[in-house]
Amino acid sequence: MTHERDRNERKFYYSEKPRLLLSENNRVFALDDNSKKILKDSFFGEERENKLELNPIEALYLVNIRKASCSKDSKQLEFLDLIKIFSNERRIFARYNVYRDWRDRGIIASFIDRIEEKNFDRSPSISYPSKHFELPKLDKELVYIEEDMISLIKADENVEKLFEDFWFGQLGVYKQHTRDKFLKLDFIETLFLAKHGYRVRSIKTGKELSFEELLRKIKKQQKNAEALLDVYEDWRLRGYIIKTGFKFGTHFRLYFPGASPIKEKSQWIHSKHVVHVFPKEAKMIMSEWARAVRVAHSVRKTFIMAIPGMKEEEYEKGEIDFIGYHRKRIGIERPSEDFPKFAIIAFTEDEKLGGKELACALRRADELGLRLIIAISDRETSVTYYVAKRINLPGSKNTYYEIEWEQP
Amino acid sequence: MTHERDRNERKFYYSEKPRLLLSENNRVFALDDNSKKILKDSFFGEERENKLELNPIEALYLVNIRKASCSKDSKQLEFLDLIKIFSNERRIFARYNVYRDWRDRGIIASFIDRIEEKNFDRSPSISYPSKHFELPKLDKELVYIEEDMISLIKADENVEKLFEDFWFGQLGVYKQHTRDKFLKLDFIETLFLAKHGYRVRSIKTGKELSFEELLRKIKKQQKNAEALLDVYEDWRLRGYIIKTGFKFGTHFRLYFPGASPIKEKSQWIHSKHVVHVFPKEAKMIMSEWARAVRVAHSVRKTFIMAIPGMKEEEYEKGEIDFIGYHRKRIGIERPSEDFPKFAIIAFTEDEKLGGKELACALRRADELGLRLIIAISDRETSVTYYVAKRINLPGSKNTYYEIEWEQP
Repeated sequence: MTHERDRNERKFYYSEKPRLLLSENNRVFALDDNSKKILKDSFFGEERENKLELNPIEALYLVNIRKASCSKDSKQLEFLDLIKIFSNERRIFARYNVYRDWRDRGIIASFIDRIEEKNFDRSPSISYPSKHFELPKLDKELVYIEEDMISLIKADENVEKLFEDFWFGQLGVYKQHTRDKFLKLDFIETLFLAKHGYRVRSIKTGKELSFEELLRKIKKQQKNAEALLDVYEDWRLRGYIIKTGFKFGTHFRLYFPGASPIKEKSQWIHSKHVVHVFPKEAKMIMSEWARAVRVAHSVRKTFIMAIPGMKEEEYEKGEIDFIGYHRKRIGIERPSEDFPKFAIIAFTEDEKLGGKELACALRRADELGLRLIIAISDRETSVTYYVAKRINLPGSKNTYYEIEWEQP
Repeated sequence: MTHERDRNERKFYYSEKPRLLLSENNRVFALDDNSKKILKDSFFGEERENKLELNPIEALYLVNIRKASCSKDSKQLEFLDLIKIFSNERRIFARYNVYRDWRDRGIIASFIDRIEEKNFDRSPSISYPSKHFELPKLDKELVYIEEDMISLIKADENVEKLFEDFWFGQLGVYKQHTRDKFLKLDFIETLFLAKHGYRVRSIKTGKELSFEELLRKIKKQQKNAEALLDVYEDWRLRGYIIKTGFKFGTHFRLYFPGASPIKEKSQWIHSKHVVHVFPKEAKMIMSEWARAVRVAHSVRKTFIMAIPGMKEEEYEKGEIDFIGYHRKRIGIERPSEDFPKFAIIAFTEDEKLGGKELACALRRADELGLRLIIAISDRETSVTYYVAKRINLPGSKNTYYEIEWEQP
């Protein structure tokens, strides 16, 4: 079998070139039975009513890279002619280029309308533990400095416990917690504690600030404050320690339940995960999105992406550009005998990606039981792939994904 | 001498604590002659009319970390009382914390109103070479695909030369330039070539696009297009090769004059510099700014920051938070006998920094002949320092800075 396949592929490359036909309404078909056979053997096109129809992306690839010919009314069409004909399709070049790169790796890419709409169960989620969390009472007030978005409390036994056992804020100075006698809480910690019953007083006005007043003030300085708080609270309530990820280029770094800033008390002192929040209403240029993943990658942390607060009714049917087959122990996965593995969305580095759009694509991939791949085509045709693995965090209403750089 | 100084420092730490006095109008002074001597010996405060006056930041530091006492109307004031009194000052906690960190490193920080307004000549610029650049003529049109922000030209000898000798666009596929017969030019390259006389035609409408029309279209998709083009053009016209920096998390990567994508022709194939554009009208959260520097750092590239298009009349007097003294071969630099070395601006990770604001601070530091240090205090009181070194690029109208991570 494998030998026959190899022969087919060789035949494709070294002898006959398939011939394509562009119909009146710009649909692409295999011109003759021989072309049809060559294409089918390499999993191009879809057979319907005895014809093999090709997706425009496949046609572009076959003409530009596989030296297929394509004609319309017996006039030969070049790659640029085809690009022009299909230039009304969304992101034609980016999608062509990702498809080309995938095929160039010797693996098969197909299209979502060629597979069954079912759960292929090829995307197991990653289980994270949860632990009971209970916030201790505190009879002291947090003093909030508006411009610095920080609050302070003078240390006593209870305040020290808040730092040592719960790792809220910073006592003293980073890694030298006995340097001074004040606990410093950042704006998210302050918001969280205010929401859960702690009292906060403004240093400037001397007035007590309710959680709502505090949130309103902070949102003026940090428009993503609510999304950040949502994610912070979600992990905190499952027993995690979540601190600034500034040193790792992300919003947060994450410690599993049981971590403590005091060496002797800690089971686990080095964070291995970072969390980055992508608000659902935000639009981010792909290169910026990739930058956040890259920093985490360079410091060997697992990058967790959060798109918090998506409501059930906000989900639309996510757009998937390609379906990806991968390699198996011997040879490659084939649409004729294997299930697909990936749902792929393709972008250029300069495109904008919306948080909601990404959440919908991730949901669609989950429904299909496929791993979502985010493919970014840079300005020099080089393609970078990121794979999203769903996290199972018991009790959480949000969905989180580990994002990893992938070489398919 | 050194011994005497060491004794002074020891005396400060281990015996007497200076006593401070807060005046009616909330100015801070040394309370008595002994306090004045202790403080002066360690370069705190400024002497005027036989009194030693302290900056509020110094007072905060002395009270919180050096266990000084501070009283007003014979009432003792604590750190939080002082913070409250000075909470109208801009970013009081961030500046306090950076000052604390600098002093904790055993080096002296002072204030700009305590030094002479002159050029200390302690910030030599880094010279970059320039080379004559002349764009070859091309009689072919670029075909522009709007949605993908890319243009294509079918290859011939002249087009190949454009790629091989000038490294415009990508012929074939990245690192495999013979894969196909089309040169792909990204939107900045397309803009540059259009500006310098090349003809561009829209694939959708079939109409020729002037440079202005093209720029208008592209600005709708990429609001920083003009700033990016400005920087791109500036380096190109000095003979540099400037390509996407996507893989390094920046806008561009840079090759020195003479680089070529064809291995045999190149003197220098690996880029060692990346360029990131910070538009003067942009506001960026410090953590985002730092992220871009970090990615470059992690791949061992020199990070060049560009704030293009600043006009002479747009410069205002840049705000400098501290003046930094550093170490010397033996011991540390002291205001009594050494020139200052750094102009320091202090931020928190959550603050926004404007491109123009940064350009003004850089200019002010240049005028003083000091190196600008950007200090970022994270939410856990840890401070990260970046130093800016001015680049001398002959013929350029912009100023560029190498940004390096620094441990002072």
